[in-house]
Amino acid sequence: MAKVNTAPLSGMRDFLPLDVLRRNYVIDVIERVYQSYGFEPLETPAMERLSTLLGKYGEEGDKLIFRIMKRGDKLEDALRNDPTVDSVGDAGLRYDLTVPLARVAANYRNELPRVFKRYQIQPVFRADRPAKGRYREFFQCDVDVIGSASQTVEAEVLNAGAQVMEELGFSGEGAFMLRLNHRGILRGLMEAAGVQPELEDSALVAIDKLDKIGLDGVAAELTERGVSRAAAESLLQTMAGMPAANGAILDWLAELLQGSELGTRGVAELRSVIDYCRYGPAAERLRVDPYLARGLSYYTGPIFEIEFLGFGSSGGGGGRYDDLIGMFSGQTIPACGFSLGLERIILIMEEQGMFPAQLAGQPQAVVTIFDKSTVGASLELAQRLRRGGLRVDLYPDDDRYGRQFQYADERKIRYALLLGPREVEAGVVAVKDLSTGEQTDIPAGEAVERLLAIAG
Amino acid sequence: MAKVNTAPLSGMRDFLPLDVLRRNYVIDVIERVYQSYGFEPLETPAMERLSTLLGKYGEEGDKLIFRIMKRGDKLEDALRNDPTVDSVGDAGLRYDLTVPLARVAANYRNELPRVFKRYQIQPVFRADRPAKGRYREFFQCDVDVIGSASQTVEAEVLNAGAQVMEELGFSGEGAFMLRLNHRGILRGLMEAAGVQPELEDSALVAIDKLDKIGLDGVAAELTERGVSRAAAESLLQTMAGMPAANGAILDWLAELLQGSELGTRGVAELRSVIDYCRYGPAAERLRVDPYLARGLSYYTGPIFEIEFLGFGSSGGGGGRYDDLIGMFSGQTIPACGFSLGLERIILIMEEQGMFPAQLAGQPQAVVTIFDKSTVGASLELAQRLRRGGLRVDLYPDDDRYGRQFQYADERKIRYALLLGPREVEAGVVAVKDLSTGEQTDIPAGEAVERLLAIAG
Repeated sequence: MAKVNTAPLSGMRDFLPLDVLRRNYVIDVIERVYQSYGFEPLETPAMERLSTLLGKYGEEGDKLIFRIMKRGDKLEDALRNDPTVDSVGDAGLRYDLTVPLARVAANYRNELPRVFKRYQIQPVFRADRPAKGRYREFFQCDVDVIGSASQTVEAEVLNAGAQVMEELGFSGEGAFMLRLNHRGILRGLMEAAGVQPELEDSALVAIDKLDKIGLDGVAAELTERGVSRAAAESLLQTMAGMPAANGAILDWLAELLQGSELGTRGVAELRSVIDYCRYGPAAERLRVDPYLARGLSYYTGPIFEIEFLGFGSSGGGGGRYDDLIGMFSGQTIPACGFSLGLERIILIMEEQGMFPAQLAGQPQAVVTIFDKSTVGASLELAQRLRRGGLRVDLYPDDDRYGRQFQYADERKIRYALLLGPREVEAGVVAVKDLSTGEQTDIPAGEAVERLLAIAG
Repeated sequence: MAKVNTAPLSGMRDFLPLDVLRRNYVIDVIERVYQSYGFEPLETPAMERLSTLLGKYGEEGDKLIFRIMKRGDKLEDALRNDPTVDSVGDAGLRYDLTVPLARVAANYRNELPRVFKRYQIQPVFRADRPAKGRYREFFQCDVDVIGSASQTVEAEVLNAGAQVMEELGFSGEGAFMLRLNHRGILRGLMEAAGVQPELEDSALVAIDKLDKIGLDGVAAELTERGVSRAAAESLLQTMAGMPAANGAILDWLAELLQGSELGTRGVAELRSVIDYCRYGPAAERLRVDPYLARGLSYYTGPIFEIEFLGFGSSGGGGGRYDDLIGMFSGQTIPACGFSLGLERIILIMEEQGMFPAQLAGQPQAVVTIFDKSTVGASLELAQRLRRGGLRVDLYPDDDRYGRQFQYADERKIRYALLLGPREVEAGVVAVKDLSTGEQTDIPAGEAVERLLAIAG
């Protein structure tokens, strides 16, 4: 037999049981918090029309869409007649959760409530070059509100996101912060410094590296990107004069941008966001950062990002995008959302030992089988314990106890229950604590209560 | 703007919030029961190597695999040089959960416990012609045990499957039954009737239609399929003589098949399965059916199927397949599993009104916003209720109350909480029951307890 390659495809992962339990632990918290904020779940298909996907993620994004081949006659025609990428593949795998949301918002316009508050937790697919922490199939956890331009929406998604983080254990003062900015402020700052409009996006990429390469580094990169020396200097001088506290920054920005309509609106909207956050867990986490850029070009208002302090990485982010839904519905519909970076969060939680030792779902005990004559007794005990609310595994064979204990150990099940002829005759169950090796008899009739007491 | 097609692709579905909540309700029961039987979760990637998928599902199955196009240079080469289906597509979408399990069992052989008990609930993809109840993306819910040849395994997966059904509400005596057979018995019956070995599979397809087309219909179809008249008559005569009760059927089979080694082993194994099921919910549901065939050819021992009485349809099934894992691992490893038909189960539960009226996860109340001056009070109330354990939506805008109530109604949220200047001044919250129109004031400071009492 030829050697079969049994590894998952490059950039894809198998999630073994402990991985799944950990992922489910995080997803359960996310779902519970989002539901407590009144969000509803949505799920969309893994495959979408190419016409739905193309042109939404920029040129680079289009190239990263996994394409599904046409089928049957259509495929044969395409292969015969000068085949191209576009003629052979006519559907693609979900690339994010925002475009499917926009499609859904347009398609079910008359069935959805006037304000649609949805969360969505599903895998997305990108034909990216695999690297540490970068996968070709990974989960996104999005929460969005469609149909309202009010800044209460920003406050709700920020508070919900912050609450998820805190309930996952990112609760210390320095655990994370929420950087907050506004597209209008960015625009205003660029205008004020004299950066040409067509260079704004490029300049933002350079500015976004401030933490990593410092003021001098940013200055060099700005001129490299074609920003005039005068504009770059003006921009950096402005940055250097920025105060530290949120209120002071907003006052400073209000003054700086008083000539810019977009900038002034931006400052006012951020004041509302901060004000509306004040009763929730985001309040203590917000940091106005007038140079936070966020890559995606579709944002139109406030933008935000979770930053893990000490990890130099983002745990997700989002913002307001009032024009995207219109690409499908034909009418402008305001929208704002937040996406949690599940893979990053799980990575940090693993590195920091933040998962509980006993995850919900793991078996609490394994019932062993002594020999053929006692199989019935073991089956009866397992069923009785399950009816009593315990998660109980049954070892399937009458192997010697050593093998059965080793199995329990491999599965990290602490208690093995022994029920041989001695125990059956005495009306007891022997409970072996595999972490200490201690073994004690308990009355068979009290097995449920006793097990619930020690392992429940 | 050209009309954009916003419908999901043919054979694919968007799951709007109520759909997702219902699906999650079913999946939660399945997971909880499987975990209580000691099963662990596994998840595998949506994409697999074509070499993993091809040749496992028969010729027809191979054609139904969705293929992903190669990328970059590899794709250009393939398109330039006489492109074929196999040269352009080098990966495929997950077609079932059994083949990925077999790949995982081989790949992580040294990390997995000696007996691997896993459940897996993920979508699979088939390029089938869409029809009512037949989708191109649908969920499978599989539970399998790898590494034991004991019939305790059959009993565990049957009891777990039966318990899922009962906990979902299929609990009446006639709600469902578990048809049970054995490959060895089928083989023995065919031998005894003189059906040529190469016609056995084909004859089974005919026999499987007994319920639908009757004895005469089966006789006609058997001869059509090339079974000799004598063999067909012998087979049908045997069938007509079958007793009704499980024990009597097994005694009858033991006598009938005493010359067949496979048949005799089959009868003995079914006796064990029935014996081992006796402490669980499958016990009352088992019906030995020596003519149950199950399509898949990889089964080697006991086979079973859930039948919904009164719906003429299968809710899933499974059996023992001791040779499949070896296709990846190179060594024979016994295995047995059960797959629940999630889509069918949900369909029947919807038709029969079996879902609870209030599904876990729906908001219990919506906090309204009177005007800009009271936004803070509404935000504070919403956060306080959430901290108190309630699921509470916040209407984002200060629209007139009529619109806010209509929104609550669209979302089937029963209670609207009003907090205008009158209520703020009086230190109360007005609770409007939208199902009756009644409105009552409660003290603002007791909002959590009062809401928990009426909506919790």
